[in-house]
Amino acid sequence: MLAHGTVVTMDAQRHIFRDGAVAFQGRDIVAVGETDQILTQYPEAQIVDVRGHIVIPGLVNAHTHMPMSLLRGLVDDQRLDVWLLGYMMPVEREFVRPDFVRWGTLLSALEMVKGGTTTFCDMYYYEDEVARAAAEVGMRGICGQTILKFPAPDAATYDESLEYTRGFIERWKDHDLIIPAVAPHAPYTATEDMIKRCVALAVEYDVPLHIHLAETEKEVRDNYRERGAPPIVWAEQVGLFQAKVIAAHCVHIEEREMDLLARYRAGVAHNPSSNLKLASGIAPVVAMREHGVTVGIGTDGAASNNDLDMFEETRLAAFLPKGISGDPTALPAEEAFAMATIEGAKALHMDHMIGSLEPGKRADIVVIAVDEPHARPQYALSDENVYSHLVYTAHASDVRHVWINGRPIVKDRVVLTVDAEAVYEKAQAFADRIADFLSKREASLLDKLIAIGGLKRSETFEIQVKARIASPDQVVQVLHNDPDIEIVKHTIRQQYDTYFLFNGRDAGIIRYREDNVIRTTDEHGSPVSLNVEPIYTLTLLGPTHEREYGNSIILSRSRFTAPAMYSLRFYKEYFQPKRIKEVVKWRDRYRIRYKGEDFAINIDKLSKPPEEGYFLEIKSRTWSEEDAIRKAVLAGELLEKFGVRPNEIVRGEYVAF
Amino acid sequence: MLAHGTVVTMDAQRHIFRDGAVAFQGRDIVAVGETDQILTQYPEAQIVDVRGHIVIPGLVNAHTHMPMSLLRGLVDDQRLDVWLLGYMMPVEREFVRPDFVRWGTLLSALEMVKGGTTTFCDMYYYEDEVARAAAEVGMRGICGQTILKFPAPDAATYDESLEYTRGFIERWKDHDLIIPAVAPHAPYTATEDMIKRCVALAVEYDVPLHIHLAETEKEVRDNYRERGAPPIVWAEQVGLFQAKVIAAHCVHIEEREMDLLARYRAGVAHNPSSNLKLASGIAPVVAMREHGVTVGIGTDGAASNNDLDMFEETRLAAFLPKGISGDPTALPAEEAFAMATIEGAKALHMDHMIGSLEPGKRADIVVIAVDEPHARPQYALSDENVYSHLVYTAHASDVRHVWINGRPIVKDRVVLTVDAEAVYEKAQAFADRIADFLSKREASLLDKLIAIGGLKRSETFEIQVKARIASPDQVVQVLHNDPDIEIVKHTIRQQYDTYFLFNGRDAGIIRYREDNVIRTTDEHGSPVSLNVEPIYTLTLLGPTHEREYGNSIILSRSRFTAPAMYSLRFYKEYFQPKRIKEVVKWRDRYRIRYKGEDFAINIDKLSKPPEEGYFLEIKSRTWSEEDAIRKAVLAGELLEKFGVRPNEIVRGEYVAF
Repeated sequence: MLAHGTVVTMDAQRHIFRDGAVAFQGRDIVAVGETDQILTQYPEAQIVDVRGHIVIPGLVNAHTHMPMSLLRGLVDDQRLDVWLLGYMMPVEREFVRPDFVRWGTLLSALEMVKGGTTTFCDMYYYEDEVARAAAEVGMRGICGQTILKFPAPDAATYDESLEYTRGFIERWKDHDLIIPAVAPHAPYTATEDMIKRCVALAVEYDVPLHIHLAETEKEVRDNYRERGAPPIVWAEQVGLFQAKVIAAHCVHIEEREMDLLARYRAGVAHNPSSNLKLASGIAPVVAMREHGVTVGIGTDGAASNNDLDMFEETRLAAFLPKGISGDPTALPAEEAFAMATIEGAKALHMDHMIGSLEPGKRADIVVIAVDEPHARPQYALSDENVYSHLVYTAHASDVRHVWINGRPIVKDRVVLTVDAEAVYEKAQAFADRIADFLSKREASLLDKLIAIGGLKRSETFEIQVKARIASPDQVVQVLHNDPDIEIVKHTIRQQYDTYFLFNGRDAGIIRYREDNVIRTTDEHGSPVSLNVEPIYTLTLLGPTHEREYGNSIILSRSRFTAPAMYSLRFYKEYFQPKRIKEVVKWRDRYRIRYKGEDFAINIDKLSKPPEEGYFLEIKSRTWSEEDAIRKAVLAGELLEKFGVRPNEIVRGEYVAF
Repeated sequence: MLAHGTVVTMDAQRHIFRDGAVAFQGRDIVAVGETDQILTQYPEAQIVDVRGHIVIPGLVNAHTHMPMSLLRGLVDDQRLDVWLLGYMMPVEREFVRPDFVRWGTLLSALEMVKGGTTTFCDMYYYEDEVARAAAEVGMRGICGQTILKFPAPDAATYDESLEYTRGFIERWKDHDLIIPAVAPHAPYTATEDMIKRCVALAVEYDVPLHIHLAETEKEVRDNYRERGAPPIVWAEQVGLFQAKVIAAHCVHIEEREMDLLARYRAGVAHNPSSNLKLASGIAPVVAMREHGVTVGIGTDGAASNNDLDMFEETRLAAFLPKGISGDPTALPAEEAFAMATIEGAKALHMDHMIGSLEPGKRADIVVIAVDEPHARPQYALSDENVYSHLVYTAHASDVRHVWINGRPIVKDRVVLTVDAEAVYEKAQAFADRIADFLSKREASLLDKLIAIGGLKRSETFEIQVKARIASPDQVVQVLHNDPDIEIVKHTIRQQYDTYFLFNGRDAGIIRYREDNVIRTTDEHGSPVSLNVEPIYTLTLLGPTHEREYGNSIILSRSRFTAPAMYSLRFYKEYFQPKRIKEVVKWRDRYRIRYKGEDFAINIDKLSKPPEEGYFLEIKSRTWSEEDAIRKAVLAGELLEKFGVRPNEIVRGEYVAF
């Protein structure tokens, strides 16, 4: 029993006992009130004197990704897509295994309990390990097993994920600390079928469903375009809210969506630090609450925050509505503190067991010291002073003792249930391996290209000769009239090339090409039906090897090409080239056969950088030295047929102009 | 000499030494670099091994009010005017004396140095005491003596303040830690003459000028209205920027004002927590920096933050531009950290001596531990990881050692230079006295009314009788025709009354009246020229004493009346009534003389709450029992003349309807 503290109950009447006590037996609170009175009720109880301290219900972190503390500070200040697609996902693909999940969870649990958080709501992979590690520390948590429509680190398909999740729920459903949950990642990473099956599973076992909803403007825009409705409206249409939903973020949300969340009693997890840091925006917390939505507070994962500090998060949750609305009375301290405790518990559908200090609820209790200068002086004019202290002044480092489920977890700022040094050591070992992986990748454009996926690891070489010509006609006439030349296909294209240049002779060059095919004709000169979508390709051009062959110059180089799935801006930020150069040209491209070999004949007109006249390129793919020599000879013959003189041959590439 | 730490220099090249050392002699840094190299240079130096720690330049808190830590958490979540006019200013009027300033400064200095802040820029009263206390702790600071056009706690006029400031500058201008400064509070609390004399003083002694500029939208609107320009444009017109300006806030600022700040090399102190908490808004930091303005970071006073934590402040400064702009690359960690150090030093015109770890600068050095779970793991892929850790993850509680001016101030998280317990005790004693003062005030509406000023402490009593009448004519005829009645003045008014009602029999009632005089005629019935401005009055109506006298009912009560200088909204929030009731009426008011006594005859038509017919009120001020009885008799006679029957007499007030 804790006695003589300022007990902030967060019960329905928001009782505060200035000389208060909390008695608990086993895992449950049995009495809360004035110390005198509770002492009379439980004269035999062992007393922990917390005089001069504040006693609060354990804080509820309504949204996080526990294992991601291992990625804390790895990379920041990047665009969301670069951060996610360029760093988080490649690293997760490479490193997320059960041991990563275990040690990351232990590290996060350490930080959380030291900072007064007793309950978390998680979403990650290998959630069995999250549950096991949290239970080991003695933390309470909702553990949401992630389900994606893509392959995930722990499953190749969502069928596999759903099967794993069912087993996971079966294994944990009767645990005293862990509540298993189904966690379809987000609407934009789900199919309708996937959501429906997640909901069915959650309903079957009556477990919560944890999901990201309406985090970014882009998500909302895309959902409108692809499904004709904003994410939460769509989610309702596909039956999401038949489950007990915990929705993270809800930053970009319409009023009708607030009404849906309220009607279906979905809980919202507001993550102000993450939403600011990743530039998602600021969730309309006050409006949601006015619409009757229950809103808790979450830290999100440590990779996007970068800490798991519920005091910081609650302070920010209280600050933002004021600054945004111009109304300093918006979301007063008491309400912000409620969001971090009882409202958070409601948002997690757990308010029958946690969120306030009341008889019958679990003994999740935090004792806050007021010994540091920032905690001085203490005003006691009204209850508001206490909430004000907790929200605007108290720091995570002020947490002195923590009990969870009646078990002492932190005593005098030391975590009792886990060997912290062992966790730190393992965490650092992971960080060192990840840094090693990334620094190798950063050193090689190819590895960096492969890391973001989509590239087939296939190297090709080509021979090439290039010459200035006065007019296309001198080539086109020959192509059509020479009996040895057969035109296979003819296209007219406009090509926008952006070259990323790097320092170092062997660094290579990345080319991002937007290729607009304007007109295509077949071998008979008949137009071929046209796909008007531009083709985006990303090519890594290796160092060039230049050799002269008779009157032609042969360039050969390695090339890795892949469809460019992301935007030019993404690649710019991901590769961070030293210089960028653009080349824009019209290209008449003939695919021909000449003496049994395939050649591409390009007649190019450069508009950027602007160049007088035209360029002729003769190219062919090659695989061997011998083949290269044979093709070089043939290219020399073609040059002669086109009437190109040796002094018209151009060395170097457009990018070097 | 500190050795083997990760030394973050913040020099022009932003050098970071992974196994770094900082050597200092006396107050000055003499060498910074790789430990190996510095050890060779200074083989005799005494070594503090800071292996595994991060060494940074002391943080620069660019705007604060040191003594206000004593008011921390006193009252929050109020509108700015209620907070300032209703609480801060009355408490400051009552309590701000040299001892308050001394102990508040010591408390703030304790918090600041423990949190890694080595330099502050202050603005308060009795600045001699701020300087003395800060020097005692060993902190570096710019101490700005506040100058106001109104009476201040330490001066009756600004002449007096200016004289004090001159003496203050003389006393401190050669001190090694303290830089005295002139601090005209803000444009809206200054006259042009006052600003000019402040500038002249600052220029004469070449000391900085510290001022609040463009903090709220209201300030800008008012400045436009009263001076035809926004505050910073106006400030330039009156010559403010001839001084070395440190401008706090700059939240609502136009591009041309950014250009002015840049051109005159004024420094800006950005206070994100305070600006959010008081709902001032979010300063356009990125735009200001793009315009070439130097921006540092400040905590503002602890009453509006509520802590003096530069780590929290810097993190928030880095978060906000991202969330607001939608660009997660806005203000990256390195730049935010620069704002907390070298840019802050520039903003304070002190970058020749502090802000970075470089030979020749003062030895203001902070050592950060990375031992807590939130600091794990540590990535060292690039320098960005270090800045990321410092801005997004490090907490004030991670500060382990601090040197200022070469002197050890904090060692192993303990402040060496001041008896913290004595400070805590004094701070609590002040808080207790202030709480006592406020709780007495809150208990009495009268004290609360007096606290905000403007009320003359004069009690008046009145007798009153009220009756329902069918038509005004029955009264007006008599007034004009009765030979004993002389009409002195006649006005027609529309009155909007808002009553604040409180629980408790003796609580009294506050009435806020907007009184619109529509037409006035003198004793001859000639119109009097009219002031069309409504008259706003605030009246405290004490408990009513009701007595019957013959056929009239006499009400007497105490009244305190004052012009209502603030808005109805302000008073609502300040007094926080249990209920509010509105009464709207047209009033024909006759001031008459009858048998040598003055009476007011009111003929009222209520539109809210809507009432049939008219009301007659006969009122007179009174001072004694005997006088009350005589006037009651005369009022009875008047009632009879007006043909009012006893059953038409109404008990109670309009507010009770």
